[in-house]
Amino acid sequence: MRNALLAAVAALSLAPAAQAADLAATTLALRDKALTDTTAWDVTESLTTEVGARPQGSPGMDRARDWGVAKLKALGFENVHVETFETESWLRGAESAEVVAPYPQKLQILGLGRSTPTPAGGIEAEIALFRTLDEMLAQPPGALKGKIAVVTQPMRRTQDIGGYAAAVRVRGAGGEAAKRGAIAYLARSASTDDTRLPHGGGGFRAGIPMAALSTPDAELLERMAARGKPVRIKLSLQSTFREKAPAYNVVGEIKGREKPEEVIVIGGHLDSWDAGTGAVDDAAGIGVTTAAAKLIAGLPQRPRRTIRVVMWGAEEQGGSGAAYAAAHRDEVANIVVAGESDLGAGEIFSAKLPKGSREHPAMKAFAAAVVPLKVLVSREPAEDGGADVDGLKDLGTPVVQLQQDAGRYFDLHHSADDTLDKIDPRELAQNVAVWTAFVYAVADSDIDFRKTASAAQ
Amino acid sequence: MRNALLAAVAALSLAPAAQAADLAATTLALRDKALTDTTAWDVTESLTTEVGARPQGSPGMDRARDWGVAKLKALGFENVHVETFETESWLRGAESAEVVAPYPQKLQILGLGRSTPTPAGGIEAEIALFRTLDEMLAQPPGALKGKIAVVTQPMRRTQDIGGYAAAVRVRGAGGEAAKRGAIAYLARSASTDDTRLPHGGGGFRAGIPMAALSTPDAELLERMAARGKPVRIKLSLQSTFREKAPAYNVVGEIKGREKPEEVIVIGGHLDSWDAGTGAVDDAAGIGVTTAAAKLIAGLPQRPRRTIRVVMWGAEEQGGSGAAYAAAHRDEVANIVVAGESDLGAGEIFSAKLPKGSREHPAMKAFAAAVVPLKVLVSREPAEDGGADVDGLKDLGTPVVQLQQDAGRYFDLHHSADDTLDKIDPRELAQNVAVWTAFVYAVADSDIDFRKTASAAQ
Repeated sequence: MRNALLAAVAALSLAPAAQAADLAATTLALRDKALTDTTAWDVTESLTTEVGARPQGSPGMDRARDWGVAKLKALGFENVHVETFETESWLRGAESAEVVAPYPQKLQILGLGRSTPTPAGGIEAEIALFRTLDEMLAQPPGALKGKIAVVTQPMRRTQDIGGYAAAVRVRGAGGEAAKRGAIAYLARSASTDDTRLPHGGGGFRAGIPMAALSTPDAELLERMAARGKPVRIKLSLQSTFREKAPAYNVVGEIKGREKPEEVIVIGGHLDSWDAGTGAVDDAAGIGVTTAAAKLIAGLPQRPRRTIRVVMWGAEEQGGSGAAYAAAHRDEVANIVVAGESDLGAGEIFSAKLPKGSREHPAMKAFAAAVVPLKVLVSREPAEDGGADVDGLKDLGTPVVQLQQDAGRYFDLHHSADDTLDKIDPRELAQNVAVWTAFVYAVADSDIDFRKTASAAQ
Repeated sequence: MRNALLAAVAALSLAPAAQAADLAATTLALRDKALTDTTAWDVTESLTTEVGARPQGSPGMDRARDWGVAKLKALGFENVHVETFETESWLRGAESAEVVAPYPQKLQILGLGRSTPTPAGGIEAEIALFRTLDEMLAQPPGALKGKIAVVTQPMRRTQDIGGYAAAVRVRGAGGEAAKRGAIAYLARSASTDDTRLPHGGGGFRAGIPMAALSTPDAELLERMAARGKPVRIKLSLQSTFREKAPAYNVVGEIKGREKPEEVIVIGGHLDSWDAGTGAVDDAAGIGVTTAAAKLIAGLPQRPRRTIRVVMWGAEEQGGSGAAYAAAHRDEVANIVVAGESDLGAGEIFSAKLPKGSREHPAMKAFAAAVVPLKVLVSREPAEDGGADVDGLKDLGTPVVQLQQDAGRYFDLHHSADDTLDKIDPRELAQNVAVWTAFVYAVADSDIDFRKTASAAQ
C-alpha cells in the first residue's frame, strides 16, 4: 500500500510526455510478461477439466458459477460476486436420427437450441432436400407439407466471421421451413471441418423439431437424394425448455488507484454448449481476459482506473449481456470501454479501436506493443465488442474489437470437438499480450473514448 | 469372341521378346487409363451410400452381400457367387460413460469387439490410470482389484503400420487388466487424430467390459487423475455376441483366355465396423481391386489367366480369410498370387513383390509402369498380403504387398469419421493404376512366383 501510494505520487508529478513514455514502457514490459505467462492456459485448463460442459440452466452452469467465484478469489480479484438474472434455458435430452429408406443408415445430429421436441416415439417422414437456403426460401407456402426440410448449404472458411454469418442464416431457418409446411428441419452444421461431429447452437422458436447434421451426413443425404428415390428419415429429439431459469454473471475487479469509479469492462462467457467442454467457446475468452487483468494487478502499482472482469453466464442462449446492461444502466457513463473475447483461441490479427482514438498517446503505446505481434491496428473503428457488451454499447459505452483469427474456430465451435487440446498455448498467450496491452494503456491513462469519438465526427 | 480368338492366336505366334514388349506397352496403357477411370470411386461411393455400416452378423452385412453380388454382375464379372461360412459376430448395443466424481463430465467411448456387456444399469468404480501399457503390465496380480483400468498411451503417426502395431497392443490388453483384478478396461483410441470420435475395433475376450476412449477424453482423464483425487467412472456397455453367425465371401471372376484355371486372387473386405460407413476401411479396397479387374476386362482380349475378385466378409471380426483358404485348399497350387487392399485410400508408396521375382520381365513391366507414380519397388520380398490372404499364404500361395501410405488412415480408421468425403479421388486412382499394372502383368504372362522364390533360395 505504501509503495503504491509513493508510486502514485511520483506518477502525478511527471510531466505529460514523461507519463506517456512511462505508459509505453510499462505496456511493452507487460506484453513481454504476458507472452510467457501461463495464467490464461491454467484458467482454461481448470474450467474445461473441472467443470466441462455448462449450458445455461444446467447443473454444469451451477458448478461453473462456483468455479468462477473461487477462481477469481484465488487469483486475488476484489469485489468478487455473482449477479443473478433470469433467461431461457433449453436442455438437450436423448436424440437420434436415421435414414429408414431406401438406404437404412444412422445419422449424426445435434438438436438446435429452442427446438421443439418430437413425440417420444419420434417422427418419420420423407425429406425435401435443398442445396442452398435460397432454394428452400423459393418454395411457396405449403410446398413442404408433411416433409422434413433439409438444407445442405456448406460453410466457407474465412479469417473473420463472414463464413459463419452466412452459415448461421441456414441454422436459423427452421421457421422458414415451418412456414412452408415442414414438420421438422435439418440443417448442415455451420462447420468448416469434415468430421462426423455435428455442430449445434441456437435456433429460433419455430414450433418444429430442428437439428444440425454432421458434414459427412449432409453429403450422404445429398448423394441419396440424387438417386431419385424418396428418402425417409426417422427423427427423435427430446429436450426441455424453460422461459425463465436462474442465470449468473460472475464478476471480479482490480480496483484503480486514482479513479476507481472509472471502469474498463472485459470478459468472456462462462456458459457453453453441451457437446464439448467449451474450451475455445469460451473458456479461452475467460482465460485471456482474466489473465490480462491479473498481470496488470501484478505491477508495483495499480493502474488509475478499475479493471472489471465479467464472466457472462448466458451468451449461448442469450440474455447475459442484456441483463448486465440493465443492472449497470446507472453506471454506464463511468464505463470507459467494454470488450468481450469470444471467437476462440486463435491469434488476434486485427484491433479495431473506439472511434477517433487511434492517435491518442495511450493507443499509440498499445500499437507499439502489438504491431510486433502481427496485429493490424485498423483504421476502421470498432463496431462489435462481442454479444455480451452489445447491451452496454446500446447505452453509449465505447467498445473495442480485438479480432481473433477464426480460420480454425469453426472446425470446433459448438461441437464435441471443442476441447482443450485444440488450443495452442502460444496463440493463447498472444491474445493475453494484446488484451493486456490494451487494457493497461486505457487503465493507466486518461483517454476518454467518448471525447475522441465526438472529436472525430 | 472372334476378336479375342484372333488376338490370342496373334499373341501365341509372337517371339518372347515381342511378347514382353507387348505386355509392357499394354501395362502402361492400362495404367494411364486407370488414372482417369472412375470405377473405383463409383463402387466406393455406392457401397458407402447405399449400404453404409456393415458389421459381420448385422442386417447391414446382409445388404452388403446383396450389393456385392449385384455390383459384380453389373460390372460384367463372371461366376459371381457367394461363399457362405460361419464366424463370430459381436454387435454393439447402447453405450455410455461418464465421470461421476470429482468432476462430472460425459465421456465419448466405443465398446471394443468381444467386450463383455456391463449389467443393464452399468458399473461404477474408481479408475487406475496408466500412461503406458508397460506401466499397467508392471502391476502385480490383484493390484487393480475392483478398479476400471485406463491406459492412455498415445499413438505415433507413421507412414507404415508401425504406429498402429504398437497401439493395437494397448487396445488388446483388456485380458491383462482382468488378470490384475480390473472390472473393466478403457484404452485410449488407436488414433492419430485429435477429434472427439473414439476409434473402436476388435479386442480379445477377457471376461470384462472394454471400450476405447476418444483422444480428448483420454487426455481429460489424465488431467483429472493428475489432480490427485480418486476419479470415479460410470460405464454402461451393451452388446450381443454369437460364436457362430452366418458370414459371406462374395466372389466374381474375369476368366483367363488361355489358362483359366490359373487364378490371381485380389480383393478387399466387405464388412466394416459400425461407427462410420466403412469408406477407407474397406470400401476403398473393394473399389480399387474391382476397378483393376474391370479395367483389364475391358481390353480387346482377356489376359491368359483368370482374375478373381473376392469381397471378404469378416475381416474385422475375423474368419473370412481362414474360411476362404479352407474352401480353396484343393485349388491353392493354381493360385498364382494373392493380395488384399486394406489400408485405406492413400497412395501406394511401396511395392513388395513375391520373392525373387523383381527381375522377371513381367515385374519389369510392372515397375516401368509404377515408378513414375512414385512407387518404390522394394528389394524386400512381400511378407504380408493382407489379413484375408494369410490363410492362402500359409498354404503356400505367393502374396504381393502394395503398401499404401497410412499417414492419414488412422485419423479415420474404425471411427465414425470413416466416410466417403475423406477419400481423395486422385489418390484412389493411383491405387487402381498400381493394382491394374500388377495384376495385368501377372495375368498376361507366365510368371511363376513359386519358381522365382525357389531360384532365389
